[in-house]
Amino acid sequence: MDDTPADDILEATYHALCKHGYADLTLQQIAAESERSKSSIHYHYDSKDELFVAFLDFLYERRASQLASVDGDTPRERLASLLDALLSFEETAADGEFQTAMLEVAAQAPYDDAIRRRIAEFDQYLFETVREIIEDGVETGEFDTDLEPAVAADLLTTTVRGAHTRRVAVDHPTDRLHETMDQFVEDHLVAAGAVEEVRG
Amino acid sequence: MDDTPADDILEATYHALCKHGYADLTLQQIAAESERSKSSIHYHYDSKDELFVAFLDFLYERRASQLASVDGDTPRERLASLLDALLSFEETAADGEFQTAMLEVAAQAPYDDAIRRRIAEFDQYLFETVREIIEDGVETGEFDTDLEPAVAADLLTTTVRGAHTRRVAVDHPTDRLHETMDQFVEDHLVAAGAVEEVRG
Repeated sequence: MDDTPADDILEATYHALCKHGYADLTLQQIAAESERSKSSIHYHYDSKDELFVAFLDFLYERRASQLASVDGDTPRERLASLLDALLSFEETAADGEFQTAMLEVAAQAPYDDAIRRRIAEFDQYLFETVREIIEDGVETGEFDTDLEPAVAADLLTTTVRGAHTRRVAVDHPTDRLHETMDQFVEDHLVAAGAVEEVRG
Repeated sequence: MDDTPADDILEATYHALCKHGYADLTLQQIAAESERSKSSIHYHYDSKDELFVAFLDFLYERRASQLASVDGDTPRERLASLLDALLSFEETAADGEFQTAMLEVAAQAPYDDAIRRRIAEFDQYLFETVREIIEDGVETGEFDTDLEPAVAADLLTTTVRGAHTRRVAVDHPTDRLHETMDQFVEDHLVAAGAVEEVRG
């Protein structure tokens, strides 16, 4: 019995998802993106639903480790790198298709507890990551000590989610919003002493 | 020939959408929510797609006129009323179901030009409404004259969209974010002279 995770199946799921979207995704299409037969995939996963949940675990774990390792010597730099990782989309067809499929998956969450739980866990992870960085910055004095880290983190997490939705649904360009959010952090999170030589 | 819009069909579409979601919606289900037969609906609309686009026009027109008439004597009051209209959800099952269905519709936008155009038009309308209020506030001096209205409006519009997505996908409560956004407007948009007796 093979107990190691079948990462190639999960990679194939990614490619099939980009190509076909979530609603129409089949095990057959996933097999077509891999070196495996449909029955070999069935050996690992009983159903498309089971495979898809494993795929979400794989995807969010990888994304979380990317976000955990963003560059930056200070909280301010780390927050800028994090926003960059969250809002810099590759302008490739595959990336656009992937984001589109993931909005379909999010829209499916209310109907599917297993999917909903994964999306909620990642949402919480993202919120906590932002909150911790802001908290660190408040402690070091780099960020405004009047800030409530959880409140600022909730606002940023929500805006990032909105940027993704608008990008997919109305093709809203994210680069300008990215600049706006960087500016927002500089103007409203960073402590006055950290940006200006002389405090007004 | 009846040339008046068949509003009762569009109302029935709303109820059927809440009950069944977008993916599985049929003309039969819409007929079941109305006093009409399926063939009577067909008399007005050739297909489910044609009806659904008419429904979106109806929905967004009604929503736009609600948002255009929010209360407030000043830009600051009008912006608070607008955020209230956008972020106060009724905690009813039907409202939750409606928001859920509308996220499904947004996720469908990349695959359907007619739907995408309607969502994009309403997105643009919302952005312009926010931008105009902020611009008015900058002109009257109630908002900070350093603000770029389009930039602030982009941020607020994106955050509202994110609040809707997170509410549906991860059941994230919107009331706290609502407070945060009100606070954000007070702290970062409203001019210092308008909130404090003595400027620091």
